[in-house]
Amino acid sequence: MKTAPRAPLMSRESAAALDAEDRLAPFRNRFLIPDPHLVYLDGNSLGRLPRATVERLEHVTRHEWGERLIRSWDEGWLELPEEVGDLIGQSMLGAAPGQVIVADSTTVCLYKLASAGLDARPDRNEVVTDVDNFPTDRYVLEGLAAQRGLTLRWIEGEVGPGALAQVVGPRTALVALSHVSYRTAAIADMEATTRLAHDAGALVLWDLCHSVGALPVELDAAGVDLAAGCTYKYLNGGPGAPAFLYVRAEHQKALRQPIWGWLGREDMFGMAFGYQRAGGVRSMLSGTPNVLGLVGVQEGARLVAEAGIDAIRAKGILLTELAVDLFDAVLAQRGMELASPREAARRGAHVTVRHPDAARLCRELAAQGVITDFRPPDLIRLGLSPLTTRFVDVWDGIERLRELL
Amino acid sequence: MKTAPRAPLMSRESAAALDAEDRLAPFRNRFLIPDPHLVYLDGNSLGRLPRATVERLEHVTRHEWGERLIRSWDEGWLELPEEVGDLIGQSMLGAAPGQVIVADSTTVCLYKLASAGLDARPDRNEVVTDVDNFPTDRYVLEGLAAQRGLTLRWIEGEVGPGALAQVVGPRTALVALSHVSYRTAAIADMEATTRLAHDAGALVLWDLCHSVGALPVELDAAGVDLAAGCTYKYLNGGPGAPAFLYVRAEHQKALRQPIWGWLGREDMFGMAFGYQRAGGVRSMLSGTPNVLGLVGVQEGARLVAEAGIDAIRAKGILLTELAVDLFDAVLAQRGMELASPREAARRGAHVTVRHPDAARLCRELAAQGVITDFRPPDLIRLGLSPLTTRFVDVWDGIERLRELL
Repeated sequence: MKTAPRAPLMSRESAAALDAEDRLAPFRNRFLIPDPHLVYLDGNSLGRLPRATVERLEHVTRHEWGERLIRSWDEGWLELPEEVGDLIGQSMLGAAPGQVIVADSTTVCLYKLASAGLDARPDRNEVVTDVDNFPTDRYVLEGLAAQRGLTLRWIEGEVGPGALAQVVGPRTALVALSHVSYRTAAIADMEATTRLAHDAGALVLWDLCHSVGALPVELDAAGVDLAAGCTYKYLNGGPGAPAFLYVRAEHQKALRQPIWGWLGREDMFGMAFGYQRAGGVRSMLSGTPNVLGLVGVQEGARLVAEAGIDAIRAKGILLTELAVDLFDAVLAQRGMELASPREAARRGAHVTVRHPDAARLCRELAAQGVITDFRPPDLIRLGLSPLTTRFVDVWDGIERLRELL
Repeated sequence: MKTAPRAPLMSRESAAALDAEDRLAPFRNRFLIPDPHLVYLDGNSLGRLPRATVERLEHVTRHEWGERLIRSWDEGWLELPEEVGDLIGQSMLGAAPGQVIVADSTTVCLYKLASAGLDARPDRNEVVTDVDNFPTDRYVLEGLAAQRGLTLRWIEGEVGPGALAQVVGPRTALVALSHVSYRTAAIADMEATTRLAHDAGALVLWDLCHSVGALPVELDAAGVDLAAGCTYKYLNGGPGAPAFLYVRAEHQKALRQPIWGWLGREDMFGMAFGYQRAGGVRSMLSGTPNVLGLVGVQEGARLVAEAGIDAIRAKGILLTELAVDLFDAVLAQRGMELASPREAARRGAHVTVRHPDAARLCRELAAQGVITDFRPPDLIRLGLSPLTTRFVDVWDGIERLRELL
């Protein structure tokens, strides 16, 4: 990964020159961009709409639903959760087939996985997470802890083996962390952190919401037990599209999720008496899959797979390097702080800056056609989704911010 | 409700005459019907595609997602779960506003409600359901019972106060039943059954999957505690569209669902430390709502509301009466049994017939363009969704079945 210092780029022309050299630039045309003047730095909250998705939704709606009707379940719909799961797993998560499935929302997936993981360590009564973990992750764990009388142990400061070592121990049942911080974009050392948790006898659950589709993840190689993530950010799956979850093959027989339903049953259309789990990761399913959501995820994931996650990561580094360079050149002197890591290898695909007036600045940026994300109390997040963000977008967005300050 | 005996209709012309008189007939044109020769008697598994949904999905996709992007969450998306919930609640469930919300799948909604209900009766250790309840309902309860060490008590035979009286008692925490049987279409007496459960000190959870959009339900008046149902049958919400759930207003403060997530938190975008439930039924939400699914449900529910649930019920009775008349005239003598109630007031909007070769007959019907549902081991379900099924469809379907026998 490119981390060597570079000369700052001080003109819009030099940003445009980077776009001209960018071999991923043509992918932007694979998305619908109705307003070319909008500077959209929020693809990490809701990714843009792929053109292929427009066509696919039209086909699935008019032909598969409207014409084939109930028959479509036997003509491909029932296999979508595993098919799209394997596409995501193989092309960007380093997961061999049969371990990833698309289902529910991220919150429900986290609940299922955390619950299953806790059941697997019945003699332990502590759960580790970090104070800056995404709210829904924290709330899911709080709910489980309240119901089961467990203690939450909180990591403060940067997530990694050093911080984990302070709180993990023989009573730790589960360590649940985000791979890339939704606030700062800091990347946790997945492999070392997982190993440390395993050394203590705990299972590990990684939230991949801000990783998937932005940088390569190596779940199998890192020894990860459980993971979940969202599809409407860098995967461009659409608003509220279903999430995905990963259960390591060797755990699939032992781990049991709490929401037993007909989709997770062996021979579901037998509708027989008594729940018998389906084999493999399919037992993580509960209710009827959301077809329109699934095909949106499939189209979005196909674009990521076609571009290649390594090429996406390389461009993500260049985009965030440009943002950091511009920050140093024009924002640092205006009372702003960089909240993201300076070292590109330790930073995901967004750059976060801190300012006491962050909320107002975000609103004013939006009024001027620059969409960013406010994260309380004082953070502005610039999401630089590599498939759809141009280098000139970074330049324009930061220039607009400079003017406001 | 019309239950008086009528003279059997023995010709296709007389069925066509009923269509000519049907004031709901124009509603069929509000749906996409690409193959006019298909006899679709499965709208109770997957309802047809409303034309308005095609346009709405196109608008939401291209304009709200593609153009407005993340801003759409503040421009209406965030309110959809409650807005669509209230539409369903007020127009067909007899539920005052603020008690119904659209979320997740039916299975996950049942899990949340059952879990919340069980938590509210911590000193009781039995759950009542019936052996013919829909599989996912039974599995959800089995899972909760296994996790909490509860005993499942099974109703055998027809669901109602008589059968419930055999198994309910001072140890019953929750009674979970289907209002309309997915197998036979038998309607349970919701009010009397609920009262009996309450007399025993239990809470009641009704599954409305085969009721909603087919017949009026009076949740508030019947004193129902909890209910959930699906939107892709008579509501025509689309494949795997999100489900809805009802929590009686007076229970909302005390009942707490298990999957704590950011959508169910007070001031969700505060992203603050520590889960604090949102007020009202919104606390039943967990993860990010599925927007494409929600708008499909909204369009489908609007059609039901426009037609009026009483008019839909009246037509449903006429359609199923015709099916029963034709059954008596041509199927009964050919080795088939009627599995649905004969009395229209006790029957939902499908008619089920029993035959040892049901599986083969369903396949052969499908090959001839008559889509029905096989339900193991020996049932054929004829779903007569009133907004889209014509009287001639009933005639054609049963005529094709007669020819096969």
